[in-house]
Amino acid sequence: MPSESTSSNFSADEYFATQPPPPTLEHDVAAVREFVVHHSATGRKVVLVTSGGTTVPLELNVVRFLDNFSAGTRGATSAEYFLSAGYAVIFMHRQFSLQPFSRHYSHSTNPFLDLLELEPSGNIEVHGKSRSELVEVLAAYKNARESGMLHSMTFVTVNDYLWLLRAVSKELAVLHNRVLYYLAAAVSDFFLPRQRLSEHKIQSGKGSLLIEMDQVPKILKPMVDEWSPNSFVVSFKLETDPALLIPKAQASLERYGHQIVIGNDLHQRKFQVVFVSRDPRNGTTTETWFRMDPHAVDERGRPREIEQDIIAELVRRHDAWIQVK
Amino acid sequence: MPSESTSSNFSADEYFATQPPPPTLEHDVAAVREFVVHHSATGRKVVLVTSGGTTVPLELNVVRFLDNFSAGTRGATSAEYFLSAGYAVIFMHRQFSLQPFSRHYSHSTNPFLDLLELEPSGNIEVHGKSRSELVEVLAAYKNARESGMLHSMTFVTVNDYLWLLRAVSKELAVLHNRVLYYLAAAVSDFFLPRQRLSEHKIQSGKGSLLIEMDQVPKILKPMVDEWSPNSFVVSFKLETDPALLIPKAQASLERYGHQIVIGNDLHQRKFQVVFVSRDPRNGTTTETWFRMDPHAVDERGRPREIEQDIIAELVRRHDAWIQVK
Repeated sequence: MPSESTSSNFSADEYFATQPPPPTLEHDVAAVREFVVHHSATGRKVVLVTSGGTTVPLELNVVRFLDNFSAGTRGATSAEYFLSAGYAVIFMHRQFSLQPFSRHYSHSTNPFLDLLELEPSGNIEVHGKSRSELVEVLAAYKNARESGMLHSMTFVTVNDYLWLLRAVSKELAVLHNRVLYYLAAAVSDFFLPRQRLSEHKIQSGKGSLLIEMDQVPKILKPMVDEWSPNSFVVSFKLETDPALLIPKAQASLERYGHQIVIGNDLHQRKFQVVFVSRDPRNGTTTETWFRMDPHAVDERGRPREIEQDIIAELVRRHDAWIQVK
Repeated sequence: MPSESTSSNFSADEYFATQPPPPTLEHDVAAVREFVVHHSATGRKVVLVTSGGTTVPLELNVVRFLDNFSAGTRGATSAEYFLSAGYAVIFMHRQFSLQPFSRHYSHSTNPFLDLLELEPSGNIEVHGKSRSELVEVLAAYKNARESGMLHSMTFVTVNDYLWLLRAVSKELAVLHNRVLYYLAAAVSDFFLPRQRLSEHKIQSGKGSLLIEMDQVPKILKPMVDEWSPNSFVVSFKLETDPALLIPKAQASLERYGHQIVIGNDLHQRKFQVVFVSRDPRNGTTTETWFRMDPHAVDERGRPREIEQDIIAELVRRHDAWIQVK
């Protein structure tokens, strides 16, 4: 399936010089700037959570696209724990992927219409155990909205994502070590340059379909070195072959010089993750595994979420980073 | 972008002989059989609505996949109008795409958490205009569930879709001319044979990505001729180049011998569709355009939906078909 080719790889600079920005970029960045100014004044820690998959359109008038598997569960869940930990959260997510709070009732495993009962009086009621859960989720949701601690923005394509991440990280740079990047989005490694896109829907009936894609530039490097230096950067690595997880995480840290790679295996990701970090002074890497019982419940009797452990550990490490940086 | 190749095209028979069925097929078909037996006894008309896009996984342990643009709005909306018109509805949709009733509060333009107010008393309330809308949607939803008129089932991949459609149409065949197929799903024209899939996530860092896909067999032909003869079959054609719409719809009717192609343009599809039909006796085709004012409201003051017109027209045509078949 994968195949080498003669196409040249784009550097980040070449990418942004040749691919067009999304039309809403200025508007989105202005909103982030306002959010940053507000929270900068309070001395609060700020996290950028990216979440969900990116698409690679095959046509300008998009009918078909390549996508990366991700419902956005990790990002949406983590955003809630960051809010609980006092962070101001920018939630940059794939349009229609899961979102904090509403995730509890989305994607049809727990559809909210089933929670609601229509009484003979015409009143809408929520009964039983569902009621206390909904009250709690609703209170946290309203609080996040009204306190201005949660700012949401969306992307669809990998191009939207790259442009947004560059612009947002430049805005966040003013917060120095108080910014945490939690890059949980499943970003495509490949893209189709605008210059090679079909204008209209690709027609079938002409034999097989042949698609050749270029590599997406590795933008973690300029992000760490130039756009947002001094920030605490956490990236994710998802693999389906467990043997690749640690070596790939190590290679990533060595290459980009950021703080943590959280490795997860596709089939174990809800119950097991590994933090891989590297001491830049001597190149020593440390692996820390978090494994939870899939049947564990929290103090309120609900299924435990491994994001609770992930965020608790990151808050500790980020606080330590702030002390020394 | 598209490119001819030497790969052979699969016939429907070859496809099903070489590609594995989804593991839940038997279970899904048994549920449809029960639904059909129940409604067969009542003499009710039954519609199969397919909805949402299909994926083409690039890996066995799926991380990346090709997808077709579709939120499932057409299918989910149409299912509600079919229920109102007295049809028993099988709603075969892409997992997590829009669904009848909950569609009014999904995909974040009208998130349901924003409807709910948490009163100081701890009660959950819905206020204002939203309240009467929610009461109405909720009543229709509960009614569809409790009356057994709506059966939902899901697919993800194009392979799931093809196997399900074949099996379901064979079950529905016993209803003869009382079955309507409303094939609104955005089905991939291309697929990757199981035999050529990577086991694990395709690794980047090896130059560009080259993907070659085969054509999906045209299964409307065996469906009309063999699996479910005498049924009333409506397919959809989505194009981005308006000049292609009518010729492609005509070619499709000629090729498969079904009853109607509903053509829609990507950018106009919410306000304008064309019914293309063909008299098999003389080959004459008829085009009927439905165009609505994008700002039109219904009798309750809410935005009109073109699906109301589409379903009204289909019910008329299906009833006429039942009279003569």
